[in-house]
Amino acid sequence: MASDSVPATDRGLAYGDGMFRTLQVRAGRAVHWERHVEKLAADCGRLAIACPAADVLHEDVMAVTAEQPDAAVKIIITRGIGARGYRPTIDARANRVVIATPLPVYPERYAMEGVMAHLCRIRLGTQPALAGMKHLNRLENVIARAEWEEGPYAEGILCDEQGDVISGTMTNLFILEGERLSTPDLSRCGVAGVTRALVLERAVTAGIASSIERIALDRVVRADEVFLVNSLIGLWPVRSIAGKAVRTGPMASRIRNWIDESGSPR
Amino acid sequence: MASDSVPATDRGLAYGDGMFRTLQVRAGRAVHWERHVEKLAADCGRLAIACPAADVLHEDVMAVTAEQPDAAVKIIITRGIGARGYRPTIDARANRVVIATPLPVYPERYAMEGVMAHLCRIRLGTQPALAGMKHLNRLENVIARAEWEEGPYAEGILCDEQGDVISGTMTNLFILEGERLSTPDLSRCGVAGVTRALVLERAVTAGIASSIERIALDRVVRADEVFLVNSLIGLWPVRSIAGKAVRTGPMASRIRNWIDESGSPR
Repeated sequence: MASDSVPATDRGLAYGDGMFRTLQVRAGRAVHWERHVEKLAADCGRLAIACPAADVLHEDVMAVTAEQPDAAVKIIITRGIGARGYRPTIDARANRVVIATPLPVYPERYAMEGVMAHLCRIRLGTQPALAGMKHLNRLENVIARAEWEEGPYAEGILCDEQGDVISGTMTNLFILEGERLSTPDLSRCGVAGVTRALVLERAVTAGIASSIERIALDRVVRADEVFLVNSLIGLWPVRSIAGKAVRTGPMASRIRNWIDESGSPR
Repeated sequence: MASDSVPATDRGLAYGDGMFRTLQVRAGRAVHWERHVEKLAADCGRLAIACPAADVLHEDVMAVTAEQPDAAVKIIITRGIGARGYRPTIDARANRVVIATPLPVYPERYAMEGVMAHLCRIRLGTQPALAGMKHLNRLENVIARAEWEEGPYAEGILCDEQGDVISGTMTNLFILEGERLSTPDLSRCGVAGVTRALVLERAVTAGIASSIERIALDRVVRADEVFLVNSLIGLWPVRSIAGKAVRTGPMASRIRNWIDESGSPR
């Protein structure tokens, strides 16, 4: 069974040597479960962390949500206990933590009318060896999120050192230009979330052109629509960035439907 | 009292949101204690983490070494328990972990004859907001240390994206050119350790010119001496990097004496 604490010698604590997922459980079902567990295994695989089997994790998720069938569930997989020193122990048994919390409640207008976004001052560093993974080294996100208080801004937009837009602090970003969807290239920094992957797949099915590429900030501000996605919020349109108005439009609700519809039960 | 486990909701585990130190206890005394505790407080201060008082930490260190008066001690300070989400909770009480392990035993020839160093393939990413701190986001070091097996190499040399040398995976680096000491600028990446600071201070006292600057790899390989320092090893001369011979000389043992002498008791 997953534990509610980790030993002080766990490498997840010592070095952030692990991965995590955050997902919804609705009516006792883990939404987009296969996507989450595949992404978790893929991320662990990149760093040779021994990811527990999907069924084991699913049992944990069901156990922690047994008394709250609607919940946000966080799964943390660490490389396990380590001796002192950075060298990964080859035979380490991964530790896992599975936590359920109440689903966050956001104002309904975030999804309907869109959100105002802060433009983060911190720039994401470039590290291809870590880019795309949802690993436990998240101080950049912590620093970014500390830039603004609760208040007008629902999310912050992160750029890389070149000034290209990468994502929100907790979301992936898409822009619509004419009939074309684009989302930032995450091969140098950022987290490639499962909702982003889902949207890219559904765009293909729907016959909507889409691309993964470098996207400068001014292109985002001039786009026909901008939206933020993740597994907890679904989709929020963006209506301003750093006080500059951003256009909203009908594609947002269409894509939100893709995300909601495809939350098919396991 | 410091705990031997942390709650699953600790932000140190969730995001690497914390700092650490590794130091020696010798005959029941914490070596370079003031330096370590000042650096820990300064690092915590940069991220607004509430670092426990020095006396509290010292009591912890003495408690965990009560039955092993010679030990390596690791202190981890995390921002504490967090709600879900990256936003730092302003009033969080820091958690602390203090662990003692036996002092590592390295071959005596490492200090006397020098070590062979691997040249790491991973390049350190640039992040001024985190540079210099010994924070818990250490996946780059983990990936770097996984590049070589135990064997000929005692340490790996890390460069930044520009190809300038930054440090070892667990050590700071100095070069001697003629009568002049230099150590890499760590304002964009790397950890500025207390032994590095000590060497820079002692160089001033000893009337040896020293500088902190960008240092290209070929300059390191051509230097008159190259050494690696940290709180556990003291000083190791480098005698080769990626198979290329590096000169050794008499400054290494002089500087090792600075480090050893100045391990004055608290």
